[in-house]
Amino acid sequence: MKALQYRRFGGRPELVDVPRPLAGAGQVLIRVTAAGVCHSDLHIMSVSEHEYRYGPLPLTLGHEAAGVVAATGDGAGHFSVGDPVLVYGPWGCGQCRNCSQGKENYCSHPDGVRPPGIARPGAMAEYLLVDHERHLIPLGGLDPVQAVSLTDAGLTSYHAVKQSAPKLGAGRFAVVIGAGGLGHAAIQILRAISPATVIAVDIAEDKLRFAMDVGAHHAVPGDEQAAETVRDLTGGRGADAIFDFVGSQRTVELAGGVVATEGDIVIVGVGPGRLPVGYRSLPFDATVRAPFWGSRPELWEVTELARAGHLRIEVETYSLDDAPLAYDRLASGAVRGRAVVTPGGCDR
Amino acid sequence: MKALQYRRFGGRPELVDVPRPLAGAGQVLIRVTAAGVCHSDLHIMSVSEHEYRYGPLPLTLGHEAAGVVAATGDGAGHFSVGDPVLVYGPWGCGQCRNCSQGKENYCSHPDGVRPPGIARPGAMAEYLLVDHERHLIPLGGLDPVQAVSLTDAGLTSYHAVKQSAPKLGAGRFAVVIGAGGLGHAAIQILRAISPATVIAVDIAEDKLRFAMDVGAHHAVPGDEQAAETVRDLTGGRGADAIFDFVGSQRTVELAGGVVATEGDIVIVGVGPGRLPVGYRSLPFDATVRAPFWGSRPELWEVTELARAGHLRIEVETYSLDDAPLAYDRLASGAVRGRAVVTPGGCDR
Amino acid sequence: MKALQYRRFGGRPELVDVPRPLAGAGQVLIRVTAAGVCHSDLHIMSVSEHEYRYGPLPLTLGHEAAGVVAATGDGAGHFSVGDPVLVYGPWGCGQCRNCSQGKENYCSHPDGVRPPGIARPGAMAEYLLVDHERHLIPLGGLDPVQAVSLTDAGLTSYHAVKQSAPKLGAGRFAVVIGAGGLGHAAIQILRAISPATVIAVDIAEDKLRFAMDVGAHHAVPGDEQAAETVRDLTGGRGADAIFDFVGSQRTVELAGGVVATEGDIVIVGVGPGRLPVGYRSLPFDATVRAPFWGSRPELWEVTELARAGHLRIEVETYSLDDAPLAYDRLASGAVRGRAVVTPGGCDR
Amino acid sequence: MKALQYRRFGGRPELVDVPRPLAGAGQVLIRVTAAGVCHSDLHIMSVSEHEYRYGPLPLTLGHEAAGVVAATGDGAGHFSVGDPVLVYGPWGCGQCRNCSQGKENYCSHPDGVRPPGIARPGAMAEYLLVDHERHLIPLGGLDPVQAVSLTDAGLTSYHAVKQSAPKLGAGRFAVVIGAGGLGHAAIQILRAISPATVIAVDIAEDKLRFAMDVGAHHAVPGDEQAAETVRDLTGGRGADAIFDFVGSQRTVELAGGVVATEGDIVIVGVGPGRLPVGYRSLPFDATVRAPFWGSRPELWEVTELARAGHLRIEVETYSLDDAPLAYDRLASGAVRGRAVVTPGGCDR
Repeated sequence: MKALQYRRFGGRPELVDVPRPLAGAGQVLIRVTAAGVCHSDLHIMSVSEHEYRYGPLPLTLGHEAAGVVAATGDGAGHFSVGDPVLVYGPWGCGQCRNCSQGKENYCSHPDGVRPPGIARPGAMAEYLLVDHERHLIPLGGLDPVQAVSLTDAGLTSYHAVKQSAPKLGAGRFAVVIGAGGLGHAAIQILRAISPATVIAVDIAEDKLRFAMDVGAHHAVPGDEQAAETVRDLTGGRGADAIFDFVGSQRTVELAGGVVATEGDIVIVGVGPGRLPVGYRSLPFDATVRAPFWGSRPELWEVTELARAGHLRIEVETYSLDDAPLAYDRLASGAVRGRAVVTPGGCDR
Repeated sequence: MKALQYRRFGGRPELVDVPRPLAGAGQVLIRVTAAGVCHSDLHIMSVSEHEYRYGPLPLTLGHEAAGVVAATGDGAGHFSVGDPVLVYGPWGCGQCRNCSQGKENYCSHPDGVRPPGIARPGAMAEYLLVDHERHLIPLGGLDPVQAVSLTDAGLTSYHAVKQSAPKLGAGRFAVVIGAGGLGHAAIQILRAISPATVIAVDIAEDKLRFAMDVGAHHAVPGDEQAAETVRDLTGGRGADAIFDFVGSQRTVELAGGVVATEGDIVIVGVGPGRLPVGYRSLPFDATVRAPFWGSRPELWEVTELARAGHLRIEVETYSLDDAPLAYDRLASGAVRGRAVVTPGGCDR
Repeated sequence: MKALQYRRFGGRPELVDVPRPLAGAGQVLIRVTAAGVCHSDLHIMSVSEHEYRYGPLPLTLGHEAAGVVAATGDGAGHFSVGDPVLVYGPWGCGQCRNCSQGKENYCSHPDGVRPPGIARPGAMAEYLLVDHERHLIPLGGLDPVQAVSLTDAGLTSYHAVKQSAPKLGAGRFAVVIGAGGLGHAAIQILRAISPATVIAVDIAEDKLRFAMDVGAHHAVPGDEQAAETVRDLTGGRGADAIFDFVGSQRTVELAGGVVATEGDIVIVGVGPGRLPVGYRSLPFDATVRAPFWGSRPELWEVTELARAGHLRIEVETYSLDDAPLAYDRLASGAVRGRAVVTPGGCDR
Repeated sequence: MKALQYRRFGGRPELVDVPRPLAGAGQVLIRVTAAGVCHSDLHIMSVSEHEYRYGPLPLTLGHEAAGVVAATGDGAGHFSVGDPVLVYGPWGCGQCRNCSQGKENYCSHPDGVRPPGIARPGAMAEYLLVDHERHLIPLGGLDPVQAVSLTDAGLTSYHAVKQSAPKLGAGRFAVVIGAGGLGHAAIQILRAISPATVIAVDIAEDKLRFAMDVGAHHAVPGDEQAAETVRDLTGGRGADAIFDFVGSQRTVELAGGVVATEGDIVIVGVGPGRLPVGYRSLPFDATVRAPFWGSRPELWEVTELARAGHLRIEVETYSLDDAPLAYDRLASGAVRGRAVVTPGGCDR
């Protein structure tokens, strides 16, 4: 089968032919109908050989996956061939205390989390081997191309937002920094699950328009006046939750400069920014945290949001042959929303 | 000053002249700009002399109040004459453990909760004496006639809904039984603070239209098929929260018949219905409770919902002279939303 | 192998010889070191043929199980032969939204929850076939005989108590009705996870002593003065959580008579009692619910409580041959704590 | 009356004669029976004139107060002369959204929080003027000298711990850095409200003994091996909450080095330490925050903990004349627990 692989450190992803995998006991083979292109793939491909700590090269990319069941292993009895599914990505051991709650993103097994496309062969291929059927949820009428990025862009945003939802009651303010694939999902999620006023911040004008299109109440240019503008919009009190999808020094400092007493700063972006926290460095009881992906039940929830019409990931599609172009466009900041590869072409 | 009083057991409310009160230490006198007409007033006036346990007769009615500050007592320094305000109604002692959290509706002082219009002279008058300035919050740009019913119809609904909000995530279902003054507020609050699907149930066709107008996703006639219809709308799983604003035997049984495992049944209506709860009488971990009014911080929150445009109480207005007619119309079920009396006429 | 089976409606459990099961794909066979004797077994054996809705007869009893891994099926790679384990009992599908959180006790699959000893062959045998390795957790140094009842008596009590823990802060009161296998666990759990004052109620004097021995602050005879005595102990305010492990009409009414505003009534016992709930039938915002067993993460938690020395299930042990006697003693109320069968004799 | 005042920048506190205050409308005058000596007083007296932003000099010290009501102003009707009381210290406006919940420590009024002994005349005097009766709670049988430090050392610790309590379930680990006045309270609070294992860290050997005396499970010297030792005690997983009552660079880094995934770092100490937070700087979803004092309902709660015997502040007592010596001893690290001044001598 065809697969898009990262093969040499510093190289571009390449389309190659590899053997189609077989479903062992408890496993499920899916024919991939959609695979999401993610900034973290660019990150993986940018790391030096010395620092690289992901799966063995060559690595088939793609940690966002939708497909239809092609084969089921012995003991995997919950799905039938032909069932459309979404794939939960952060594969844990399934046994530890965290996994018992479905928080496989925080699996405490010594092997850690081993997602497809990062630690194992991923979804940028005609077929994907899923390690256990618990990592599948029914697609349930959603379009796989529209829905595939719920599994990371949607889930990561949802996990970040949901934990701060108790702070986003009536009259509260949320700030979303970076209106890209994750940010535009976060804006919609905030509008769906809270009555808070949503302020988007981005350095690009088209991203600010995008933010307004998907439901932000205010769009603020990410310049030197940003902190003052945000504080003014909150009536001087500050924002109750700030979701930073960039993570640069400039954005974490912006977050620190606008957070309210008891507010949350959530650093999702993988940038190198660091916010120093101590007595009186921030308003009292403001919290800072950096989450990772989301849990199995949260994937159910974000999928239900999409099904109810509250969340629509904006996508542009590419064939598997054109997938390298998708990465180029993503790297240049040109993608509005999310780029999705359809290994099977129009045949979903 | 003019005041509307309940004077004789079984009588109708009467307009009389009474002395204008004076603001003592810590107290605030407000000129009433709007006073809400409530079903519970009808309840008070329907109770026999033997069972009556409210304030002394004559009782000036009106427990929903908006006004402007007319005078402040010694030591009441937070408001100035002319400030427009809303009045928090369930006045507690302000000192006990519950009151220290602003839950004066659950004041544990032996004297209990003593609201104006129920235990003390109320707002159906030109002036209202407020026992302490902590029972006022700034109106902050809201129209007093639109806003006055936030203090009971809004607050009671908000308190009922908010506690169940954690159960109303994505893909969940809420049922509102009774689309009157409180029900139409509950529907809007649910839409604002949760992504749940909202199903309204009422026996009157015009109330079902009203429910849809204010945001319900589905409107179900309250007939014998109601339980089956609701269960079908939830895909057979049942509803995650049911808010019963009627409280009759029929409505509490409907609630019991549609609740999901771990769902909430919230009986707000003052009807005589009783739902028997025990092992396997309801789905597992379904809860039943009957709340009362709301807390001081919740009044802030529901007011912020209105200010943000999430909640608009539908009102029809009456002069103080016409207030008895408002009660007649309410008793007949003809009021759409809430009836409001404006003691000062158009002079807000 | 030997197995204790319920074979004829209305009959006593009988010791028989049955084939040792084999571990299929994903399954694990354990050699049983301890199996708990439970009131619900008596309930199963008391139901008429007409009403019986459990597994097919003959039914091997025993839904509390500890053992050592004897064989692992294909794809079940997390345990090795010889590992000592506890068995999570309420086996769900593992796939649905509830199961994804580990709440298999509330599995929403059409087949429902299918525990060993109730819907499938149970632990009162030399070997138990476990349907999937996710239903095992490491015993981790605990004694299997001491620990086996953590899986139901412990877990059910823990689940009941944990949900009410937020209401059991400093200065609060918890009431435990029924100081048997579950009740004596609940008392210890309450002492471990909350600073609340614990009041035990029982009709038997020896059970009241037992309650004090395991940590209750007060023991109240379950007579006609019980409600008044409990209210007095709470300073007249009532109890913030009542755990009723009996569920008779008398006990649910006692619970209703002592609950505080915003308190919780938790009906765990399978008795026929019903508490009617509606406007002013109980203090405001008092809740009533009837839970069932517990979740996978909760089994981890209650096991950690035992490991930390906070929870010690009192047990008396029986050989498999003597297991019918254990049921007799349980039925007569003579068991202090929990009866445990050790199919392998002293060989743990 | 006699009062201990900070009068000149850089000077020592001095005993002077000042007029006894009078209770105005809504106010209460108390005769002080106990006043706590606090590290933050030392901080106030160490700040240069240029940076000083507290009350006007001379400043009567003392923000922890217990007393008996000596006089009540007009409209302050909840207490009678002779009633023994504790004083809630972080006086807010009482009107704003935060104050409506009793969170006066986070009052959003432009004037901010104005505690006695910091922004107004404090409790190191024979009498203290309390601005409003809501800032009093009944002492209720507690000894004022034992109880006075519940109002800051107790309340601050309780507020810090309580917010992290949901993370401190069975099998979890809490770390307390600094076993002084606040730390020894935190250890006891942790033991009372959670089943977590408590690890104390201090650089002084006598403080480690003190920590064990009040209930810590482990005491770890605050040397270079501290992080490794703590991690080992947690089985390598890290601690679920770390309470740093020092706040130095060394202690915040220790906290960062031992925190678990999803753990909380709570910086209570006023030291200059700063912990940099960003993507992968800490385990995922670890949070960092710096709280301040506590709320009115939390003071009720911590007082109930003391009343139930769960919390006993260790004290050494001084006359008002000897109060300067108490500050000297505190500065030298010699105080075990808390130093308390008794302005009325033995006459409580």
